[in-house]
Amino acid sequence: MTLRVTIWNEGRHEKTNAAIAALYPNGLHGAIAEGLRAHGYDTRTATLDEPEHGLTDDVLATTDVLTWWGHIAHGDVQDEIVEKVFQRVLNGMGLIVLHSGHFSKIFKKLMGTSGNLKWREIGEKERVWCVNPAHPIADGIPDHFDIERSEMYGEPFGIPEPDSLVFVSWYQGGEVFRSGACFYRGLGKVFYFSPGHETYPIYYHPTVLKIIANGVKWAAPTAGPAIEVANRPQPLENIVVKAE
Amino acid sequence: MTLRVTIWNEGRHEKTNAAIAALYPNGLHGAIAEGLRAHGYDTRTATLDEPEHGLTDDVLATTDVLTWWGHIAHGDVQDEIVEKVFQRVLNGMGLIVLHSGHFSKIFKKLMGTSGNLKWREIGEKERVWCVNPAHPIADGIPDHFDIERSEMYGEPFGIPEPDSLVFVSWYQGGEVFRSGACFYRGLGKVFYFSPGHETYPIYYHPTVLKIIANGVKWAAPTAGPAIEVANRPQPLENIVVKAE
Amino acid sequence: MTLRVTIWNEGRHEKTNAAIAALYPNGLHGAIAEGLRAHGYDTRTATLDEPEHGLTDDVLATTDVLTWWGHIAHGDVQDEIVEKVFQRVLNGMGLIVLHSGHFSKIFKKLMGTSGNLKWREIGEKERVWCVNPAHPIADGIPDHFDIERSEMYGEPFGIPEPDSLVFVSWYQGGEVFRSGACFYRGLGKVFYFSPGHETYPIYYHPTVLKIIANGVKWAAPTAGPAIEVANRPQPLENIVVKAE
Amino acid sequence: MTLRVTIWNEGRHEKTNAAIAALYPNGLHGAIAEGLRAHGYDTRTATLDEPEHGLTDDVLATTDVLTWWGHIAHGDVQDEIVEKVFQRVLNGMGLIVLHSGHFSKIFKKLMGTSGNLKWREIGEKERVWCVNPAHPIADGIPDHFDIERSEMYGEPFGIPEPDSLVFVSWYQGGEVFRSGACFYRGLGKVFYFSPGHETYPIYYHPTVLKIIANGVKWAAPTAGPAIEVANRPQPLENIVVKAE
Repeated sequence: MTLRVTIWNEGRHEKTNAAIAALYPNGLHGAIAEGLRAHGYDTRTATLDEPEHGLTDDVLATTDVLTWWGHIAHGDVQDEIVEKVFQRVLNGMGLIVLHSGHFSKIFKKLMGTSGNLKWREIGEKERVWCVNPAHPIADGIPDHFDIERSEMYGEPFGIPEPDSLVFVSWYQGGEVFRSGACFYRGLGKVFYFSPGHETYPIYYHPTVLKIIANGVKWAAPTAGPAIEVANRPQPLENIVVKAE
Repeated sequence: MTLRVTIWNEGRHEKTNAAIAALYPNGLHGAIAEGLRAHGYDTRTATLDEPEHGLTDDVLATTDVLTWWGHIAHGDVQDEIVEKVFQRVLNGMGLIVLHSGHFSKIFKKLMGTSGNLKWREIGEKERVWCVNPAHPIADGIPDHFDIERSEMYGEPFGIPEPDSLVFVSWYQGGEVFRSGACFYRGLGKVFYFSPGHETYPIYYHPTVLKIIANGVKWAAPTAGPAIEVANRPQPLENIVVKAE
Repeated sequence: MTLRVTIWNEGRHEKTNAAIAALYPNGLHGAIAEGLRAHGYDTRTATLDEPEHGLTDDVLATTDVLTWWGHIAHGDVQDEIVEKVFQRVLNGMGLIVLHSGHFSKIFKKLMGTSGNLKWREIGEKERVWCVNPAHPIADGIPDHFDIERSEMYGEPFGIPEPDSLVFVSWYQGGEVFRSGACFYRGLGKVFYFSPGHETYPIYYHPTVLKIIANGVKWAAPTAGPAIEVANRPQPLENIVVKAE
Repeated sequence: MTLRVTIWNEGRHEKTNAAIAALYPNGLHGAIAEGLRAHGYDTRTATLDEPEHGLTDDVLATTDVLTWWGHIAHGDVQDEIVEKVFQRVLNGMGLIVLHSGHFSKIFKKLMGTSGNLKWREIGEKERVWCVNPAHPIADGIPDHFDIERSEMYGEPFGIPEPDSLVFVSWYQGGEVFRSGACFYRGLGKVFYFSPGHETYPIYYHPTVLKIIANGVKWAAPTAGPAIEVANRPQPLENIVVKAE
């Protein structure tokens, strides 16, 4: 079955910054959606300024994997929508958090940490290294690749220890960053991937898009309804407990 | 330096249930505090119905490790206090979450998950097995020990994959549970330990107390102020990045 | 592409024990192979007493995932073959180690630990619980299922902390066991799954077969040759390091 | 109790290379031993060319933590001694593997992987970043520090996913490396730490020595004999299993 991916984008930079609008004429979401479509996914987009941020109950219910890009307007995302996305992840929807989404409400809520990091924006080179080549998100990816101009994100990064760490980035200015990290949450899976600054053409980079596409495949729901993680009383089942 | 431990307890059962009050005449907090004092810690207690739940800024600032027991009144814990405890953990205070604390606001916030589990209260036997004997929390603990009457907590448990899984419990009625689990969060460490139902004398069990005491030692802050996990811009430092 | 699975079996019990031969007329390997074929894999078998234990260079080179069952003759497996299997795993072949394979040379070599465990053979009930329902190996599996008569395997189990722990078993006699555990090794993936005693019809149990089938899918090689984990000198690449 | 640390060194470079002998007049082991003694440990040294490589049964039995440095003579270490060290680690002795020890027999045996990595020796700058500031090995360490001239070690590094990843190094020439990594093995703990090339004064660097000292403390044995990881039959214990 074709995976259904919803590309969520804050979408504010594109409205107010001509250079960004020129670089991403269909928005960051448009570029990502097109890149993922080329990998065979059924993609649609949603943005902050749509009603319910474009994430209606129906959209969430029919989304296998949601990607999330936000930056300057994290505070404008309604708590009620964040709660719905959170519950959908715990119930199996995959979530790919991109770049400055490290500071989004949904990411911090799922991590249980600050999301803090260092940053520097001088257009330096980033070199992304794979540290777990057996991981499905590394499928077809070289052991390293360069992003010629990138925003630096540096450690210590306020996340829990990843369940799998797949990529670590090197920056020309002297920092490293855990740039590709996987987390299990309930029935859902979360992949954080840091490359993707709004002022650089990173979402046209074929390796970046391939990694996000691999992330979608990895984060796709398993099983359907076989297991429920519920808080509930449990009867005895086929076991006799005797008073002794 | 003697570790300073604050034992937090909801403290409601003891006020309304005569059997529990008789079993724990000084409250669950009193029993735990006495048990930890015997291991050489500097202990004090705090309860829900004190002003600020007994967790004033001064108390939190002078607490190395906080233990948390709550059950029927999770909703009465003020969000502002939860936020303060959360920030203190991210800044290095250890946290030991006990038994029904799996459903407390602070635990769910730090985990980023539901805290859901199965339960059954028929006084069945629990056998606690150690699965990581090299871990400091297993120090001096036998490979298994029995709790003659316990409340059953069963999988799937809505937590992230632990950074270290130390104990797994067996229940007479047919369930298993990840009963001792460690998590890193920012500069802080969190240990969840499930044994400890209010209607059984579990907090007088010497092995249970030894495990909690080991947990305190493991969760104690490191380093003091050497590292800060902050969101901040980062200047270039001893590195020359040249335009090419 | 259809995954190519080689089912390896020691195959000695079937030759000397009439009851086992009656239960598994085509060998344990025959039952597993048939069970996996029903899941759409291209299966073949190999056994200890074949030349090169049936694991020639050609067989290994054309195997995506190898399953391993051994018990009384671990010592008869030639070190040279073990080394070849080890290298193939590090280069991407998946490996599923079953039941008493916990004490095989290849498993202990890949784990770096003893493989030790407790055991008891009285035909007691085993109940297998899923503790990571988001994991692909849990796909379509209920939150628990019973094996009516099983050999008990108990903790502490001499393995490293799993990279993902998917199943934990409960035994009627009082033990627990990490019965489904995943490990990354080089480009390869290893899944250990404990149910499968030779005197019980466990390899006809549809849920057991489904879990092994899921394990094959999870352990399948990624990427092919994109990444090599090699010990080698590294030239400078697109980076200018200047004397300062 | 004062921890007893044995500093093991191959000790060959110092005999054949005048520059190294001048830099480390008491050998690499001498420098490390002196550095650890300053942290309050009871230290002694052992080298490859002593009888039994200086690792007699008595020495191993009275060692809490062993540190290991080797490079050009890994093949000269007797398998019998490696096996003894391996068994001691599984029974609780801590092991700190340093720098080119990544390719030692004992490290590869405990990891179950290749130990492969990239390297380059041009004296470039290494910057070590802490990625888990809550870990006891990060105690008192700044969030990063520089080693002015170092040998580069690069990813992908042929190790399992660490149980805790504490440090990641940045190199001027464009690589990253998981330079501080923790692993549980049986009752023992293993810490790999990469800085430490024989031609640079790295074992006089106070932060490097502090990290190794922290590693010793973390890797120290717990509990003594409380738990044994043994392969053995298990009787029923306080549990009645009834035929149904």
